[in-house]
Amino acid sequence: MNYPMIIRILGQVLQLEGILMLLPALVGLIYMENTGWVFLVLGVALFLLGFLLSIKKPKNTLFHLKEGCIVTALSWILMSFFGAIPFYYTQEIPSLMDAFFETVSGFTTSGASIMPNVEILCHASQFWRCFTHWIGGMGVLVFLLAIVPMSGGSNINLMRAESPGPSVGKLVPKMRQTARLLYLIYITLTATEVLFLVIGKMPVFDSLCSSFATAGTGGFGVKADSLASQSPYIQWVVTIFMILFGINFNFYFFMLYRHVKKAFRMSEVRVYLAIILASIGIITLNILHIFGSFTTSLRHASFQVASIITTTGFASTDFNVWPETSKAILVSLMFVGACAGSTGGGIKVSRFIILVKTLRKELKSYVHPKSVSKISIDGSPIEHEVVRSVNVYIITFILLFTASFLIVSLDNKGLITSFTAVAATINNIGPGLELVGPTTNFAHFSVLSKIVLIFDMLAGRLELFPMLLLFQPKVYFTKPIFSKRVK
Amino acid sequence: MNYPMIIRILGQVLQLEGILMLLPALVGLIYMENTGWVFLVLGVALFLLGFLLSIKKPKNTLFHLKEGCIVTALSWILMSFFGAIPFYYTQEIPSLMDAFFETVSGFTTSGASIMPNVEILCHASQFWRCFTHWIGGMGVLVFLLAIVPMSGGSNINLMRAESPGPSVGKLVPKMRQTARLLYLIYITLTATEVLFLVIGKMPVFDSLCSSFATAGTGGFGVKADSLASQSPYIQWVVTIFMILFGINFNFYFFMLYRHVKKAFRMSEVRVYLAIILASIGIITLNILHIFGSFTTSLRHASFQVASIITTTGFASTDFNVWPETSKAILVSLMFVGACAGSTGGGIKVSRFIILVKTLRKELKSYVHPKSVSKISIDGSPIEHEVVRSVNVYIITFILLFTASFLIVSLDNKGLITSFTAVAATINNIGPGLELVGPTTNFAHFSVLSKIVLIFDMLAGRLELFPMLLLFQPKVYFTKPIFSKRVK
Repeated sequence: MNYPMIIRILGQVLQLEGILMLLPALVGLIYMENTGWVFLVLGVALFLLGFLLSIKKPKNTLFHLKEGCIVTALSWILMSFFGAIPFYYTQEIPSLMDAFFETVSGFTTSGASIMPNVEILCHASQFWRCFTHWIGGMGVLVFLLAIVPMSGGSNINLMRAESPGPSVGKLVPKMRQTARLLYLIYITLTATEVLFLVIGKMPVFDSLCSSFATAGTGGFGVKADSLASQSPYIQWVVTIFMILFGINFNFYFFMLYRHVKKAFRMSEVRVYLAIILASIGIITLNILHIFGSFTTSLRHASFQVASIITTTGFASTDFNVWPETSKAILVSLMFVGACAGSTGGGIKVSRFIILVKTLRKELKSYVHPKSVSKISIDGSPIEHEVVRSVNVYIITFILLFTASFLIVSLDNKGLITSFTAVAATINNIGPGLELVGPTTNFAHFSVLSKIVLIFDMLAGRLELFPMLLLFQPKVYFTKPIFSKRVK
Repeated sequence: MNYPMIIRILGQVLQLEGILMLLPALVGLIYMENTGWVFLVLGVALFLLGFLLSIKKPKNTLFHLKEGCIVTALSWILMSFFGAIPFYYTQEIPSLMDAFFETVSGFTTSGASIMPNVEILCHASQFWRCFTHWIGGMGVLVFLLAIVPMSGGSNINLMRAESPGPSVGKLVPKMRQTARLLYLIYITLTATEVLFLVIGKMPVFDSLCSSFATAGTGGFGVKADSLASQSPYIQWVVTIFMILFGINFNFYFFMLYRHVKKAFRMSEVRVYLAIILASIGIITLNILHIFGSFTTSLRHASFQVASIITTTGFASTDFNVWPETSKAILVSLMFVGACAGSTGGGIKVSRFIILVKTLRKELKSYVHPKSVSKISIDGSPIEHEVVRSVNVYIITFILLFTASFLIVSLDNKGLITSFTAVAATINNIGPGLELVGPTTNFAHFSVLSKIVLIFDMLAGRLELFPMLLLFQPKVYFTKPIFSKRVK
């Protein structure tokens, strides 16, 4: 392990978090809130601490995937810990564990909350809570890559450890440019949403916070009822932007470079939209008797489908009271998740495409045992290594899910609550069903369950392995490798 | 496709079923029941029909895995259809769909019943119902292999299509001897259980039926309350035999040939027993407050754990009212299932061993990216092909499970009912939770759901692919291959 590099990068992450905390400090200044000072002091302190940690440039800058994973996992844990301090210090969240849960939920873009009423938060805290979604959505290390020059394999290995989906593509040859391009698209889309919300007469502050939560596919709202009391226009805007942020960002990259055909030929995007349309269709019919009007049913169905498949977790109504078919579809969508390379969580559409193609190939091999075929997506063959890693991911997901479910079930809250609590955290959605449904929260769980759910949120956001590696004692005792084998 | 061979084997299966029906006819004779005649006439008719179908020996006897899969799937469907006729003809089960459901549930050793009260059945029907478990447990085609000489690849490809678990080992060089040996062990164990039950003062008829249901890990009982009203001795005997029938039959083979050390070194058997012991321990403590006494809790915990992990599905008490942790463990065990090469269903312990080892290997590869390691079990390395097929199995399982769950949820019976109904049928267990719990039955489902659950029972028993291949149109249009490439 290259500890000097790990410490340096952790320092840079803390510096960055310190700088980002100046934004809620500014909000505090605008609204004349004392909490602004908390963010200012903590931000400056974090910046100095980070500066001290990262001051020494290591001689050996070589950086492998394991270092990338460990530094990513540690960054996210540290970031969440320091990010939780303002909530605890101001006693807006009286328990440190709960504040940590809420911040992890923020950064991992889960949106699972322990707060019975978010409206008690002051503006600075509200802003910070939603802003963690925005930082976590695209990733703090990707942000770092965009602004700090890195070498020795740090860039690709950090990107691989933090980015969602089965494989990380470079959009452009240089990693740093890729990271910048991603943030450029991200900022543009977020700004556009803010604009549309302000046009719909949502207050600017609420528009900003809601857009942050949509962009990161997080789901923290500024109102206790999420978006239920907003106008149909606002709900439709948010629905559309949730779907947009769940699309693979390669799509926008292609659009940016005017490869429109190539963009619309991306099978992941097409399957993603097809699943959304089919689910909306079935649920609209299934809930028609509840809302009476077709347009209202369509709006709520669209909103909820978009919210769950993109793993945002906003609610426009209490879907816990919907008929079973609708709930079964929503629970299934929890696992499907958004596109790879988007800000969404879940298992990811592209993984399911690979799974279905694997099954088809297997059936074909029974019919023509001698044929040798390779799975391909969008015309290019999928390497054996990618298929293998998708399989390993699914296996790991199942084992982690089952272990978490069994531990959370010790709380005796009911099978559906335990099952959907784990599903909603490991897939970074937020609300589940029954006792963790959209009108309730996660405060009632035991400390043990909260620790498990925190772990699941982090594991889900970081694609499982970084968090699991943290608990592999062997990883800490390997010597740094001085070879030149860096991709 | 080699249609002449398929028709010939189907004929032989029907002949065999005809002969086996003489047993319930005999039971009818002993108890002087008219239903005995139904079995006699149907048995003779099936034998003649089968004789006509199999009279012509095909010139081309070459037989591949696809033919093995198709003939296995068709055999099980035909067998179940004809096996259902007596129930329907006597109107003991008034609906043909329900009679078919019940018989599929019998042959696939699921034990999911649509009968509110099984005690209305006459002895001949009772016997037949439980006897289908015994036939289905080891497999009708394995039975055929044991008595009919086959060539051209029929033997190994039938065995591979019908046997449970990731890989079929030949116990002895000749397939026919392997099949005979399996049935020898099977009959001996069954007879031993009958003996122990009769010693415990269970009537001989009940002992026979219960032993058939234990041996096949089926779960149909002769009483409406399953085994709840039986003495603790009987319940313990059944518990132990359920566990024994869930063990990989290679274990008994090793014992038979006095390779005792080798037998006890089988890691699948050790993991299987470890899971059982751990689950019994936790559940015993978890239900202590319900039963008060430790021994009663231990007995019910052991019985239920054995019943679920072996996918038998007997009940000694209504575990639907147990606390959530116990239910969560039982639901997880539904998926684990018994050992490969046993009569039990589920995903199988050996598959989970391979999954866990795959995960460990993956984590290791992060720490030492250059190391090349192969997974091994019991000292011998696992071929890449086996690991791949386990992955494909899991993927297929997940996709089939989700599709079934979504369709069954249309009945709006509650998420837990729908989820566990699919889990209990695809894993060939029988009872689930809530509306399909041990004190209820499957009669209330819609026809569509019943078709899905019937499909799932067959798919689960035949390891998914034979049933899926039935719906691959391409498979029917391939020409028979006259090459010599037969394993």
